[in-house]
Amino acid sequence: MKLLRVGTVGAERPALLDEEGVLRDLSGLVPDIDGTLLADDEKLARIRAAAAAGDLPALDAAGLRTGPPVARIGKIVCIGLNYHDHARETGAPTPEEPIIFMKAPDTVVGPDDTVLVPRGSVKTDWEVELAVVIGRTARYLETDEQALAAVAGYAVAHDVSERAFQIERGGQWDKGKNCETFNPLGPWLVTADEVPDPQALGIRLWVNGELKQDGTTAEQIFPVAEVVRYVSQFMTLYPGDVINTGTPAGVAMGQPEPKPYLKPGDVVELEIDGLGRQRTQLKAA
Amino acid sequence: MKLLRVGTVGAERPALLDEEGVLRDLSGLVPDIDGTLLADDEKLARIRAAAAAGDLPALDAAGLRTGPPVARIGKIVCIGLNYHDHARETGAPTPEEPIIFMKAPDTVVGPDDTVLVPRGSVKTDWEVELAVVIGRTARYLETDEQALAAVAGYAVAHDVSERAFQIERGGQWDKGKNCETFNPLGPWLVTADEVPDPQALGIRLWVNGELKQDGTTAEQIFPVAEVVRYVSQFMTLYPGDVINTGTPAGVAMGQPEPKPYLKPGDVVELEIDGLGRQRTQLKAA
Repeated sequence: MKLLRVGTVGAERPALLDEEGVLRDLSGLVPDIDGTLLADDEKLARIRAAAAAGDLPALDAAGLRTGPPVARIGKIVCIGLNYHDHARETGAPTPEEPIIFMKAPDTVVGPDDTVLVPRGSVKTDWEVELAVVIGRTARYLETDEQALAAVAGYAVAHDVSERAFQIERGGQWDKGKNCETFNPLGPWLVTADEVPDPQALGIRLWVNGELKQDGTTAEQIFPVAEVVRYVSQFMTLYPGDVINTGTPAGVAMGQPEPKPYLKPGDVVELEIDGLGRQRTQLKAA
Repeated sequence: MKLLRVGTVGAERPALLDEEGVLRDLSGLVPDIDGTLLADDEKLARIRAAAAAGDLPALDAAGLRTGPPVARIGKIVCIGLNYHDHARETGAPTPEEPIIFMKAPDTVVGPDDTVLVPRGSVKTDWEVELAVVIGRTARYLETDEQALAAVAGYAVAHDVSERAFQIERGGQWDKGKNCETFNPLGPWLVTADEVPDPQALGIRLWVNGELKQDGTTAEQIFPVAEVVRYVSQFMTLYPGDVINTGTPAGVAMGQPEPKPYLKPGDVVELEIDGLGRQRTQLKAA
């Protein structure tokens, strides 16, 4: 299923995009799409049955904003340098184990919402990422099977990053990862049953129409199952948590000088096979 | 005012500790203590007036668990190496600007709840910290006055840390900061009007009755006002967010070999002048 949330900021309603591409209203069945729903197999089955039976009312998509597909995200765990080609372009050695950093859930916006270039920023960069949305509490998992069973679904995430804040301002990367609007998410949460192999997805990003990232999740150093299992050794993952699993080569930081960092007015488009497309315009904060 | 939340995990009710040390029930006035309340001057004034008039029903404190004093925390921003004496003991240079890292809100437990030593941990360490609780949205603040006006109050926080996960496992500190139960908070949120100088607070921690940290917030390299103003340049702070402002000297990592890292059965007590006392026992995860 393709689950999404449509409407104005903070007042989104739950919806489903059916196989004919028609937007269907879920608000008669569930209050929202969040960790509570994603952990509830019975409710998810009821949505699936209603969709199959044609029982869901159609919604007029015209003019409707798409919000982030998950409400009340508990935490966002990010994996750094998780693509062979991206590690090479940054000059960093291939990590021996996953690098973990955190992004606050309040950075999340919808897939077509405005992204703000922070005040004082000169190095705002793009990163298209495969987001994993958790559906089962995951704690000290032992096997890849347990890890994949904890995944509710997948989405497109934009891990917007300010490289000077991240690297040149002392200490930890988090300083350049948590600026407001720095995590567009969506358009859809695609349930895991419709993503048979998360390691075989084309993943692309354009800036002002020019293709900048053109990779595949096959290049991930640590695949989704290993990432979920690994993270669960260090922290407990809860339904509604999100893992951004890293970005392929092609970010601004990896390009020759003068590096083409983002500026107000730029348009960034992101796409992952089967997970839909984002289009955000940048503005000054 | 001393605001707190009492009751079983997930079912805490809002309460107030009055000037005679009597626990008073706030559940007739407000649903909970969270960002919504802390941003609402009128509701806070109503609580203050009811307390002064003796209108709040007493609660029997016997056997009542104390939960974390703030519900629905949005994010926890932590400041690293923010005490002169702690920076010296770790051998790190004094930071030129605040070091920021993040802790997930799901790590928060009550002040007397159990802290779990993670599986595979050999370097679980303690850090008593002054927590700042935000009451006003703070975004690109310019002055110390604006920064202090954004503070709803203060509390005792325990920034439990696994040093091997934090430092020896690749990448960023977050890996050793986000284990479950790693952020005991409370007992109280003391409103900012009752903390006239946050830079003049004694701050202490004991392990199994032995005094390990015995500092003062006067040793902070970046005082509270500067921390709030600084953080607001990189991310937006919202009511109900928490900033852990760093720890003074005396952590296990700073001591001679064999370093006395925490193990199951240990008892850690923490105290800050006027903000109350925590007592947690460690168990194996």
